[in-house]
Amino acid sequence: MSTTLSAPPLGLLLGDIVRRHRPQKKEGTVPGNIPFLATVPFDRFGIAVATTSGEVFSSGDANVPFSIQSISKVFTLAMALQGSRSARLWSRVLREPSGTAFNSLVQLEAEHGIPRNPFINAGALVVTDHLMEETPDAATQLLQFLTKQAGAEEGTASHGPSIDEAAAAGELAGSSRNLALAHFLKDFGNLTQPAESVVENYVRQCSIMMSCVQLAKAGLFLANDGQGTSGRVLSPSEAKRIGSIMLTCGMYDAAGEFAYRVGLPGKSGVGGGILVIVPGQCAICVWSPRLDAKGNSLAGTAALADLSDRTGWSVF
Amino acid sequence: MSTTLSAPPLGLLLGDIVRRHRPQKKEGTVPGNIPFLATVPFDRFGIAVATTSGEVFSSGDANVPFSIQSISKVFTLAMALQGSRSARLWSRVLREPSGTAFNSLVQLEAEHGIPRNPFINAGALVVTDHLMEETPDAATQLLQFLTKQAGAEEGTASHGPSIDEAAAAGELAGSSRNLALAHFLKDFGNLTQPAESVVENYVRQCSIMMSCVQLAKAGLFLANDGQGTSGRVLSPSEAKRIGSIMLTCGMYDAAGEFAYRVGLPGKSGVGGGILVIVPGQCAICVWSPRLDAKGNSLAGTAALADLSDRTGWSVF
Amino acid sequence: MSTTLSAPPLGLLLGDIVRRHRPQKKEGTVPGNIPFLATVPFDRFGIAVATTSGEVFSSGDANVPFSIQSISKVFTLAMALQGSRSARLWSRVLREPSGTAFNSLVQLEAEHGIPRNPFINAGALVVTDHLMEETPDAATQLLQFLTKQAGAEEGTASHGPSIDEAAAAGELAGSSRNLALAHFLKDFGNLTQPAESVVENYVRQCSIMMSCVQLAKAGLFLANDGQGTSGRVLSPSEAKRIGSIMLTCGMYDAAGEFAYRVGLPGKSGVGGGILVIVPGQCAICVWSPRLDAKGNSLAGTAALADLSDRTGWSVF
Amino acid sequence: MSTTLSAPPLGLLLGDIVRRHRPQKKEGTVPGNIPFLATVPFDRFGIAVATTSGEVFSSGDANVPFSIQSISKVFTLAMALQGSRSARLWSRVLREPSGTAFNSLVQLEAEHGIPRNPFINAGALVVTDHLMEETPDAATQLLQFLTKQAGAEEGTASHGPSIDEAAAAGELAGSSRNLALAHFLKDFGNLTQPAESVVENYVRQCSIMMSCVQLAKAGLFLANDGQGTSGRVLSPSEAKRIGSIMLTCGMYDAAGEFAYRVGLPGKSGVGGGILVIVPGQCAICVWSPRLDAKGNSLAGTAALADLSDRTGWSVF
Repeated sequence: MSTTLSAPPLGLLLGDIVRRHRPQKKEGTVPGNIPFLATVPFDRFGIAVATTSGEVFSSGDANVPFSIQSISKVFTLAMALQGSRSARLWSRVLREPSGTAFNSLVQLEAEHGIPRNPFINAGALVVTDHLMEETPDAATQLLQFLTKQAGAEEGTASHGPSIDEAAAAGELAGSSRNLALAHFLKDFGNLTQPAESVVENYVRQCSIMMSCVQLAKAGLFLANDGQGTSGRVLSPSEAKRIGSIMLTCGMYDAAGEFAYRVGLPGKSGVGGGILVIVPGQCAICVWSPRLDAKGNSLAGTAALADLSDRTGWSVF
Repeated sequence: MSTTLSAPPLGLLLGDIVRRHRPQKKEGTVPGNIPFLATVPFDRFGIAVATTSGEVFSSGDANVPFSIQSISKVFTLAMALQGSRSARLWSRVLREPSGTAFNSLVQLEAEHGIPRNPFINAGALVVTDHLMEETPDAATQLLQFLTKQAGAEEGTASHGPSIDEAAAAGELAGSSRNLALAHFLKDFGNLTQPAESVVENYVRQCSIMMSCVQLAKAGLFLANDGQGTSGRVLSPSEAKRIGSIMLTCGMYDAAGEFAYRVGLPGKSGVGGGILVIVPGQCAICVWSPRLDAKGNSLAGTAALADLSDRTGWSVF
Repeated sequence: MSTTLSAPPLGLLLGDIVRRHRPQKKEGTVPGNIPFLATVPFDRFGIAVATTSGEVFSSGDANVPFSIQSISKVFTLAMALQGSRSARLWSRVLREPSGTAFNSLVQLEAEHGIPRNPFINAGALVVTDHLMEETPDAATQLLQFLTKQAGAEEGTASHGPSIDEAAAAGELAGSSRNLALAHFLKDFGNLTQPAESVVENYVRQCSIMMSCVQLAKAGLFLANDGQGTSGRVLSPSEAKRIGSIMLTCGMYDAAGEFAYRVGLPGKSGVGGGILVIVPGQCAICVWSPRLDAKGNSLAGTAALADLSDRTGWSVF
Repeated sequence: MSTTLSAPPLGLLLGDIVRRHRPQKKEGTVPGNIPFLATVPFDRFGIAVATTSGEVFSSGDANVPFSIQSISKVFTLAMALQGSRSARLWSRVLREPSGTAFNSLVQLEAEHGIPRNPFINAGALVVTDHLMEETPDAATQLLQFLTKQAGAEEGTASHGPSIDEAAAAGELAGSSRNLALAHFLKDFGNLTQPAESVVENYVRQCSIMMSCVQLAKAGLFLANDGQGTSGRVLSPSEAKRIGSIMLTCGMYDAAGEFAYRVGLPGKSGVGGGILVIVPGQCAICVWSPRLDAKGNSLAGTAALADLSDRTGWSVF
């Protein structure tokens, strides 16, 4: 990783990335079970970079809030690892890639109710359950965490992070698969709170609206030895370890392909966002709503591969 | 099937079966998730035979009510096949053996939400959902059906069939697996009623209390070309076809072994009951509460193999 | 089963079955991995019935030899059960329906190398291995068994059963899946002979050529309490038990559907033959080369359902 | 990755690593199917580091040759990516973590014969097949590659890399699972050479004997932008990409755990060796023969976690 960050070129580079990768036609898909996501215009594209030296660069629709969806899993995991009970979490969820779809019940059955990692849905439900044991409204707790990290953005029209409760309600109505996972975890004794409450809380976390700029700032602690925009979030080793889980498990069933093409820890959401970490240097958030067959942003993935090639950013 | 029924020997034979097979010690298991079933004394054993000529023979605890559990699936299937909508049912559930545990989610995922047969839990939930489309309280409808078929039993102290609502409530509290199955079916679009309602209704059906005598009488139509104790239940061909599903799918993951040892269509429940059909001759119900590793009555299965050997009753 | 056999109507009935069910157009498929089978004209259709009273009725192409393929599994199982070592066989193979494709490796892995039943390929390889422990050329041993049972057919132009060695060689070249199964069994310690030899022997068994008339006669012992056309083959209980395995496992992954529609124990082969047993009455063999999606003869299955409806033959 | 390499401390550090981690008692296991590996004394422990600046540090049994086993997969993959036909390889094997055991057939069946990655056995067989299309004796080709990279080691008693043909013959006799995988691949059309030849060649690759020092030198190109000890092996981007596959797929079903604890790309073999890459800095090889439940060196994994903690080496 010999490339160094130089501020002006990066701003220009992001502008060029937006010009190249903003979708010109309606390719890819949107998730069928979340009606709200289908309403976002297909040609939205934004990118933001928050550096460990405190600068933020952005281009395109980088201040437009979008639904963070599964990117929330990175932050709930970080919150779960902050507490004194974190060791207990690792007895309830593994840290291995799953090799199956993010919402599959098969592996969960084969492995007796212990999810493969915190980033598949079953694992995220366990993390949420773990948080709810201390703070029943874990979604609001997450919102406060994100608001603190994302900070104020002067000179922009955007608001701070917020839960889109109407979207959450719509998403909850299509959450049969997550309810099945939660009851299944309950059957294996790996859920302490009521299954319905855990799913509701999980869906509200997914329905948080944030912009690329906000997410890049919120994720900076992962690139900065655990040091966030407003104080320490995790120890350096815990921060690095979340990076390792992102690299091996962060992109649904395309984690290997993403590591191969982009070479950086990332976490995507079906809202079209991807959060990526360049250890020691910066956090990147890219957003474009339409998805590939694995559920990752089509234009976002392509943009990150391009950016990685042009900057030399890669952990390998 | 050259053996003929002769009344006196059969009565004596059943007495001998009870003497041989009533458990002397606490072998086998009871289901961990249904607290009520653990309270039944281990040495209960009853058997009853209702013949197509209208006679009923019984021995042992044949008039003691027990929880029919999955034996209810035979009768809800029969009810579902009575209506004009029966063709639609077969687009929602297959008629193939499953080759996996009765409550597995794996095969359901592989086969996109179409249960393998009506006797695994997922299939029975679909049958219940089908019934509820017309009669929301399908459990009470089933109770009425069974009461009509089981008829009055003069000279005994037993009551008619009844739902043990307290036991049902206890079982519902441990129904996470069934709730997972129901939400999973919902996710695949194969459940029209609310998942929670279907599971509640299903559990109440399972919690019906009946004696061996009552169950043998209620199941007689399956041995009698569809003709029940009080009128026609199904056409001869539909009755035969339920028999074929019992033979291939009726004993959880031991259907093949039961067909091999006993050679008769049967359906067991984790309450320890087994209903067996001798086509053209009789319906048999045996009951003893403790189970083998596959969930079938330990003493009941042994008794039926013995009875089959001594009478020559077998469809093969 | 109240219908009685009356010779003249049965002959007429078979003629009518041939008229109704002989294929008029090229529907269905032939197995891609067995080149020889693709050369058989699509409109071949034959049927034969051998009764326990010693008569044989037939119609259509009932004397044309075809490749018996998996029907051989019924007879190798019978041979394996004749010997004193038969108990050992049941420690190496189960008697349960599989719920997966006949050549799947998945269930075999989950169940640690113990095939679900003797009629899926993995199970038949174990049966062949069991036979080879005493008689290395088990295929020739099977041929002798079948020749003895099928007997001489006076007044026809057909020959006795024979192994089509050229077809076997062609089939062996496409036997990668069976070789994978055999090596997998070996890895689990459930194969004593060399994997390649077992597969070669198995393929030669499958390549035996017989006519409907010959197969019906050879299978008669299964309908006749173990008594074959030339002496006792098995005890009555062993014969009945093979019937139970045919009913639950004989039609690949359509055993339940076949039991539902036809209601008789059957075993099909991808050569287009189906052998069916009416306990106490007769053995039936139908043949037509083109297959449905599950690998069973399309016209053959339809003909058997029709025949069952018109005769009332059913074990239920 | 702020720590810098300083030669003297590293030599001392490796000595300390050996003192701490050399096994004192016989913990862990050896592979049951490879008799040769059981003969290695349990307390062997060696470590070597080859730096991009051309130095080599080592301690313990670092010059004792051992069986490289699956570490060979890294080098056959590198060889396959050298040629002009490399694009074709990626149509035959994916780059995703498997989430199942390294020798499982289940996922291969579900994914229609396309292995999940080149480091599970099925994937390595495809890579070997790919190499054999041009060079039938791919094992000797690999030996020449490794000999060239490992170079001469002056002042040591060890020889260059060699194939232990006796050990290979012994391992081949226990290769039923690999033969099953190869025939299964053949059945899916994803093997062009004879299954037996591919397995034999694969086993001979695994039976190459090398020391820690030799393996660290041979793997240096992966840490050095594709530049090996004797000339360029791969382009910088191809070298990085092999690193990404090592990180996500290199440690059997413990890749996630290894990334979490060690944070570096690695590849282990059941001979007890682990090759690890610190991008831009060095290649490390550690060896100790006894394995954990996932098949990775018990003492080797612990030593690497310790080394990573004490040096700060991590890609995250």
